[in-house]
Amino acid sequence: MPWKLASADLEDLARGATLLGTGGGGDPYIGRMLVERVLGDGAITVLDPDEIDDDLFVIPTAQMGAPTVMVEKIPAGTEPTQSLRILEEHVGRTAQATMPIECGGINSMIPLVVAAETGLPVVDADGMGRAFPELSMETFAVYGVNGSPLALAGERGERVIIDTGDDNRQMEWLARAITIRLGGVAHIAEYAMSGADVKRTAVPRTLSMGLSLGRAIREARQAKRSPFAAISDALSTTLYSEVRELFVGKVVDVERRTTEGFAKGVARVASGSSELEIRFQNENLIALRDGAMVAIVPDLICVLDAETAEPITTEGLRYGQRVRVIGISTPEMMRTPGALAAFGPAAFGLAEQFRPIESLVDTLVT
Amino acid sequence: MPWKLASADLEDLARGATLLGTGGGGDPYIGRMLVERVLGDGAITVLDPDEIDDDLFVIPTAQMGAPTVMVEKIPAGTEPTQSLRILEEHVGRTAQATMPIECGGINSMIPLVVAAETGLPVVDADGMGRAFPELSMETFAVYGVNGSPLALAGERGERVIIDTGDDNRQMEWLARAITIRLGGVAHIAEYAMSGADVKRTAVPRTLSMGLSLGRAIREARQAKRSPFAAISDALSTTLYSEVRELFVGKVVDVERRTTEGFAKGVARVASGSSELEIRFQNENLIALRDGAMVAIVPDLICVLDAETAEPITTEGLRYGQRVRVIGISTPEMMRTPGALAAFGPAAFGLAEQFRPIESLVDTLVT
Repeated sequence: MPWKLASADLEDLARGATLLGTGGGGDPYIGRMLVERVLGDGAITVLDPDEIDDDLFVIPTAQMGAPTVMVEKIPAGTEPTQSLRILEEHVGRTAQATMPIECGGINSMIPLVVAAETGLPVVDADGMGRAFPELSMETFAVYGVNGSPLALAGERGERVIIDTGDDNRQMEWLARAITIRLGGVAHIAEYAMSGADVKRTAVPRTLSMGLSLGRAIREARQAKRSPFAAISDALSTTLYSEVRELFVGKVVDVERRTTEGFAKGVARVASGSSELEIRFQNENLIALRDGAMVAIVPDLICVLDAETAEPITTEGLRYGQRVRVIGISTPEMMRTPGALAAFGPAAFGLAEQFRPIESLVDTLVT
Repeated sequence: MPWKLASADLEDLARGATLLGTGGGGDPYIGRMLVERVLGDGAITVLDPDEIDDDLFVIPTAQMGAPTVMVEKIPAGTEPTQSLRILEEHVGRTAQATMPIECGGINSMIPLVVAAETGLPVVDADGMGRAFPELSMETFAVYGVNGSPLALAGERGERVIIDTGDDNRQMEWLARAITIRLGGVAHIAEYAMSGADVKRTAVPRTLSMGLSLGRAIREARQAKRSPFAAISDALSTTLYSEVRELFVGKVVDVERRTTEGFAKGVARVASGSSELEIRFQNENLIALRDGAMVAIVPDLICVLDAETAEPITTEGLRYGQRVRVIGISTPEMMRTPGALAAFGPAAFGLAEQFRPIESLVDTLVT
């Protein structure tokens, strides 16, 4: 059944989306402000992907850029819908719904801005099942939907259309160049597809999962229960059911640089003589405990406040923070050879092979 | 009257266009090969700008990139017409003619490739009246025609549309980013306009001028007359009638680097204790004789072989070459305050003020 999402839900969704951002995806706070401003007392209709018509015309919308820039360069607010309109005009068809391309971070919110502004429904699914740094890292692409044509809207009214046919990496390469020259942030509409394609290629129900996660953490805090156990409980009935404890300790070192439009770096968390090293490119990519791999992309590596379970992004990491780092399994459709070629370790230049979190770590999160 | 341009004319046109390139604009040789391959025994119709209909729909076409890359990265050949088709499709109107945006260098040839392939006529005019490194440096822009929407075709079928409204510098900024990521060269269609706009904003008869210049040099060589005097004679009845001698000497130093998509550097020519310094960004920008300015952009600074008057591009400059450097005046429409703001000294970061060549140097070229 379609359900309604209101302004009151956004705080929980932002928390859950930050967790699914695995360190990246951009801070949803700014996106949330944008949604609230447009939505007011209204509500957004959310469609279950299993229930949509096969010929529904869906245009996903998103923000593109480095998270470190996203938090400093606030959009005018009209760009998300503008990107959808540019693509509609280019393809000569009107969207019947929008959808996230990325459920983690700010891109959980951008389609809601569009939905609130246009009245379009949002499909409860996405193409990353978390956050990833590049536009080609999509289950949509893995299972045969082209990102092109991509429409890009800049804050000073710039309109760009990029069509690289079935070469989604080239699309990313060109769109990234434009985004960098626009100051590091742009808004995009891409991966236009049919309802049938959504069912075949999207990770289902990731918007509602983000909302459930954020709500579970808040309710556990209010009830003085463990918010970490609440995360495990909330995920137990989803496609992300394996939740493992990776490390508890203090952040002792963060190296971070914004380069070529990405935030890249390494964070170190220590406890006694033991250390967890996390390497990231916008998102956390690999975690090594005393040199041994304990989690690797595309599985989720989430750094949370050790007390409150508030998720911490890579740009929010600070020396001295006490954190608990957890690993979460991804759905099978994100672990196939095709999926791993698009967004597995090798796609980030890592030499390590993918191994499922549940085969690396036994300790459950409670 | 419309006139015909055939393959036999291309060698002369290439020579004249290289001279008008003032060191830049890209080597027309490759463009000439592309035209010859498509044109064969056929002929291209060239329209005089004064005689076209006011409502003729003209889409100019060009190649974009650093000359140093252009000579090494040969286009597949289909991109020039492809860029025109992308723009036609985007604006929903069919071109009735094409036109150069730049009469110097390879961009004298690219519209001829399109004309030969499509059967469209070419308008005998352009928007630079020479060669310039940036897409916003156009008399079209100075007198109110927008470059946007710009269509860009890449060699692997990439299709990009950039629309920055009336901000032609932002258009250049974004298109340059795409061109760099495509390997340094792309083909573009931009500054679509009416016949009335052509009459108002284009530098007239620069294609035929390039052809006359190249022919005059060749015929003088064959008749054992001075090819330099022939250049002066050929220009005497045009809008470029002031031709001045700047220096005769030997190239003793060339610094050149390809950076941010441009070829930038300095060349030094010496004779006895005297030296001419030429600074360039793709094209020659300023000439200083023993420290005193003798010519400055937008006037033309042309380095020619001291014997044959063969024009030498910045990427063709070599230690030991014996050269004669001449300065050529530009039409009044290229020297107005608006024109100088777009492509005068300050547009290239030069501190010097523009001064007409005829006020700086008395020595005529004979």
